[in-house]
Amino acid sequence: MVKRGFASDNNAGIHPLILEEIIKVNHGHTIAYGDDPYTERAIQSLKDTFGDHTEAFFVFIGTAANVLSLDAITQSYHSIICAETSHIHTDECGAPEKFTGCKVLSIPTKDGKLTVDKIKEHLYGFGFEHHSQPRVVSITQSTELGTVYSVEEIKVICNYAHENNVLVHMDGARLSNAAAFLGVGLNELTTYTGIDVLSFGGTKNGMMYGEAVVFFNKDLANDFKYRRKQAMQLASKMRFIAAQFNAFLKDDLWLKNARHANKMATRLYNNVREIPGVRITQKVQANAVFAAIPYEVIRMLQAEYFFYVWNEEKSEVRWMTSFDTTDEDIDRFTSRLKDLCKNR
Amino acid sequence: MVKRGFASDNNAGIHPLILEEIIKVNHGHTIAYGDDPYTERAIQSLKDTFGDHTEAFFVFIGTAANVLSLDAITQSYHSIICAETSHIHTDECGAPEKFTGCKVLSIPTKDGKLTVDKIKEHLYGFGFEHHSQPRVVSITQSTELGTVYSVEEIKVICNYAHENNVLVHMDGARLSNAAAFLGVGLNELTTYTGIDVLSFGGTKNGMMYGEAVVFFNKDLANDFKYRRKQAMQLASKMRFIAAQFNAFLKDDLWLKNARHANKMATRLYNNVREIPGVRITQKVQANAVFAAIPYEVIRMLQAEYFFYVWNEEKSEVRWMTSFDTTDEDIDRFTSRLKDLCKNR
Amino acid sequence: MVKRGFASDNNAGIHPLILEEIIKVNHGHTIAYGDDPYTERAIQSLKDTFGDHTEAFFVFIGTAANVLSLDAITQSYHSIICAETSHIHTDECGAPEKFTGCKVLSIPTKDGKLTVDKIKEHLYGFGFEHHSQPRVVSITQSTELGTVYSVEEIKVICNYAHENNVLVHMDGARLSNAAAFLGVGLNELTTYTGIDVLSFGGTKNGMMYGEAVVFFNKDLANDFKYRRKQAMQLASKMRFIAAQFNAFLKDDLWLKNARHANKMATRLYNNVREIPGVRITQKVQANAVFAAIPYEVIRMLQAEYFFYVWNEEKSEVRWMTSFDTTDEDIDRFTSRLKDLCKNR
Amino acid sequence: MVKRGFASDNNAGIHPLILEEIIKVNHGHTIAYGDDPYTERAIQSLKDTFGDHTEAFFVFIGTAANVLSLDAITQSYHSIICAETSHIHTDECGAPEKFTGCKVLSIPTKDGKLTVDKIKEHLYGFGFEHHSQPRVVSITQSTELGTVYSVEEIKVICNYAHENNVLVHMDGARLSNAAAFLGVGLNELTTYTGIDVLSFGGTKNGMMYGEAVVFFNKDLANDFKYRRKQAMQLASKMRFIAAQFNAFLKDDLWLKNARHANKMATRLYNNVREIPGVRITQKVQANAVFAAIPYEVIRMLQAEYFFYVWNEEKSEVRWMTSFDTTDEDIDRFTSRLKDLCKNR
Repeated sequence: MVKRGFASDNNAGIHPLILEEIIKVNHGHTIAYGDDPYTERAIQSLKDTFGDHTEAFFVFIGTAANVLSLDAITQSYHSIICAETSHIHTDECGAPEKFTGCKVLSIPTKDGKLTVDKIKEHLYGFGFEHHSQPRVVSITQSTELGTVYSVEEIKVICNYAHENNVLVHMDGARLSNAAAFLGVGLNELTTYTGIDVLSFGGTKNGMMYGEAVVFFNKDLANDFKYRRKQAMQLASKMRFIAAQFNAFLKDDLWLKNARHANKMATRLYNNVREIPGVRITQKVQANAVFAAIPYEVIRMLQAEYFFYVWNEEKSEVRWMTSFDTTDEDIDRFTSRLKDLCKNR
Repeated sequence: MVKRGFASDNNAGIHPLILEEIIKVNHGHTIAYGDDPYTERAIQSLKDTFGDHTEAFFVFIGTAANVLSLDAITQSYHSIICAETSHIHTDECGAPEKFTGCKVLSIPTKDGKLTVDKIKEHLYGFGFEHHSQPRVVSITQSTELGTVYSVEEIKVICNYAHENNVLVHMDGARLSNAAAFLGVGLNELTTYTGIDVLSFGGTKNGMMYGEAVVFFNKDLANDFKYRRKQAMQLASKMRFIAAQFNAFLKDDLWLKNARHANKMATRLYNNVREIPGVRITQKVQANAVFAAIPYEVIRMLQAEYFFYVWNEEKSEVRWMTSFDTTDEDIDRFTSRLKDLCKNR
Repeated sequence: MVKRGFASDNNAGIHPLILEEIIKVNHGHTIAYGDDPYTERAIQSLKDTFGDHTEAFFVFIGTAANVLSLDAITQSYHSIICAETSHIHTDECGAPEKFTGCKVLSIPTKDGKLTVDKIKEHLYGFGFEHHSQPRVVSITQSTELGTVYSVEEIKVICNYAHENNVLVHMDGARLSNAAAFLGVGLNELTTYTGIDVLSFGGTKNGMMYGEAVVFFNKDLANDFKYRRKQAMQLASKMRFIAAQFNAFLKDDLWLKNARHANKMATRLYNNVREIPGVRITQKVQANAVFAAIPYEVIRMLQAEYFFYVWNEEKSEVRWMTSFDTTDEDIDRFTSRLKDLCKNR
Repeated sequence: MVKRGFASDNNAGIHPLILEEIIKVNHGHTIAYGDDPYTERAIQSLKDTFGDHTEAFFVFIGTAANVLSLDAITQSYHSIICAETSHIHTDECGAPEKFTGCKVLSIPTKDGKLTVDKIKEHLYGFGFEHHSQPRVVSITQSTELGTVYSVEEIKVICNYAHENNVLVHMDGARLSNAAAFLGVGLNELTTYTGIDVLSFGGTKNGMMYGEAVVFFNKDLANDFKYRRKQAMQLASKMRFIAAQFNAFLKDDLWLKNARHANKMATRLYNNVREIPGVRITQKVQANAVFAAIPYEVIRMLQAEYFFYVWNEEKSEVRWMTSFDTTDEDIDRFTSRLKDLCKNR
């Protein structure tokens, strides 16, 4: 029996169409490091998606996409403002600090979303050399808590940041899920809101590996190829990342996968929200469900399914769905949860 | 027609058995970041190869394997001694300096191989705080010039280094080719010579991506998992790197691939060495042929085949063979070369 | 007329006895970089003060003392926990992040003092490679808000930290003022509380320049001389820093200076606390007075005296006293303040 | 008896006029961190010296002046080209690599001087992302071997560098000695040759501590104040560095001191060059004499005088003279040397 859990969307494997494309490009020789026709095509597809004035580069993983996005637009005496729950603050083992030398300023939030009011508190000390100079606001779309910024919310943040000579980075490891939820294009969330640089995720939505860094202002990307190489993120057999993106972007596979994952999260939410003992703790918008459930139920459920405890103290768990989650996975899981809650 | 050139062994694609293993593990969910049975098996295979006392970790690329190997065994006030032609000195855009903070001291050589006499010149200033403290000698096996250290040569370097409280790193991006040439085991070149940490290459010998860092002293690896994560080299869908190593190490696929590539280099060498106008400039031991050929021949040949000019001034080129090079590739290429040399 | 303000204790000059000692050692040649008898004596005086088992090193400034203290006891994947108001977080332009690569985690406090409860929230994720590993708690004594930790409070923090395999750094730029306030020895605040490494300040208490890094466990200092040199903090004409410390430590000059500065702060406090419109916002324990005063009074007073607005929104100012502040300085200043408050 | 040796010009103390100025400014309060009238005057004096279009900043030591000069004009993927004997390569414990992240490429020379031919060998790989991008040539004037570049030699290097989009840094820790030797102004060696950024030394020519970083193009200095702070080189009691520079630049004290030191080196050279057993190994142009003398003489002489062995193998020593060296110091020393050479 195929085992599927709810630990993370990166516990899933490779989407069949993506694997198929890898297989397809595996013949003969191509120039290494991206000077090949597959990469050319993938880059063009990204330009078609985000705008012809953009520049895109592939890297291996989301942490690298984030860190290199930030590195490209900062000097070491800058500070980076983000939510306390953001991947760059809590899940990258200090990679942003190590690689950029910048100070990372984290802001507590209820739902993983920054607001102008919260950002404002950190925008001071400009020109004062004792103070790390505020330079970037980094937002995550969809957030690490499964919530989604509206197009308008992003615009407001971008406008405010730009008025203060601050740039905006978007960690879009799950940008597809946000676009699917909102029913808007990827460009509506980025190109048209004022985002300066984007980490565009593939791995959590059906790829084997591979993310893109997209610059919405070419000037910011002038020397990016050197930064990527020095950051150990230049793939030699680049055609295989390119092939994955070609499949990902073709016929909106990214959207189909994201829609499916979101739909599974909604199904999960609908199944569990009225189980006695279960309390949903975040809005279910993308492909995550956060819930507080009895401590002993967590332990018993974890014996059968992978998933993470988000907050020990609050007995809160995170369940992620992915492109390959099935109705049966959800139903079997929620039925088990229901039993455990009942019998405790 | 399938096009194969001689630019680099990383211009080749994925070996069919390796791709097959990727496909095989692509079902269901596994825990991300390496806590899965495929990774467990691959790590065990590396221990079977290099010794049960070793510790191995996967990273994406060779530059990362090198830089992280060095990072694990240095502090920023150390220096790293290497050949001027070494990958860490010439092909990593300063990644070792950026990530470790160390000084890299490069030594000119004729054949890419360090010797005790050359290393000796840099082993001074111990205890003198103005001087970067010599800490690591890094050798490449097989070298960037296609030459191979004998087992004895490596032992002599390791002994000398250790007597001086200096550690030895081996860049083994093409270790397989060296082992194939010498007819010895991978452990005979590493475990039994005294190497402290190894970058063990996969990508240049048939993998899609993936390299291993192998520590021959577990104490050096205590905190490596944090270093790898902070260096943006922890793969989420780790099973796919593991699967590749499992195929690579199974039934000595690494050796078969390397032997074949070496054999193709020898065939190339035999085909070209007596062509008038062609002068072989390095010993052909692994999977590379270095040759000086007339400048106008280079240009014409490059119009049809990918390969790199190594030294413009000397009109010297590098031809790399790989696991998928065929007799026909060689013969067609050398026949063309012969014609061009004749007709100039 | 000599102008003295309340901007900072580093707006003062050099104490006459310290300058005298500089003049005294200025004859003939001595070996550079600390291998001289003056430095030997100063280091011995620090050992006499903090314990024979300690190791001390001189650097130029407080930021360097802090950053190098932290660098010596961390790896880049560690995190450093401190108060939001701490100098390392707000006043060093990101030097700790840049130089150590670590994540700095700041905690909001009311009085600049950390507690176990606050520290506890950040002590998690040990062994989890995605998370910067908590490694150091940094406390400031006396704090940036002029408050002082009791001996017992420091012990409790040190014990808790050590139980969790976390080290404790003390930013003692104004340690003298804390010792003077508490009436205890410098060692009672450090050696006997369990502090692991101390930035011991001189500049803010009468020196021209010069701070000491003191390790309470020699093992932590093994390679410090290389770190100091690489951090650009090794003075060539070291005798002049040493001479200052010799004068500073002789006949308890450090204590006399600190006591005086504290006394002046108390006088200031007593003079202003009942002025209508003035509200004292922090306990006055060391040599600082924090007060909320009417906005227009700030502006008028600043036209005549240097001092900083601490919090624009709260109309809160900081007044620092120093070794050379006089009763007349205080009285003239407070009389002016009284007038301004009355006449608004 | 006042003891003076020949170990280094930084074994000397403070010139009386400089110390006098320190004493003079030691009254009352001034704003910290450089916003004071003494600093304003010193900066203006530097502008008067190097040109009104220049920007100057004070730091504590020469290593910092060098590293920060380089940091201001590089990104981490750049390389820095220098002589093998340069201070940045051999005497800064890797500070340039650690702080800038750049690769430092060192070139062997006979006399410590770079030439276009030597620089040329490293100017390749532009635009190739695997290769650290050549960005700065760093020359030392006067060199670490006591030799001096002519004005013309510097111009040739600057022109060549600029033609290749490479900047030129000058390590002028002993620029005064070079100017004194050549009989030209400081600006003739810098402003009018095309130097982009200069480390202008004070400590080795009579100061207690303090160096200046001078930018000849203001655009390069835009964000330097943040870099200096983050590099832990912003002095709080800045007036005391400023006072030293004010004395140093007043009535050409820098020149008088340098001339004297040079004269003493010439006297030393004239005294020793015909002693049997002594062989002068470098041109004596600034304030250093390099000589090969019998090994046993070195040991006996070192028992009485401080000086360094430069090259153990060649039995070569370095003797530095300074502003306070006297005719008697030289004569006593050379007389002793003569005896030792005779009696061996």
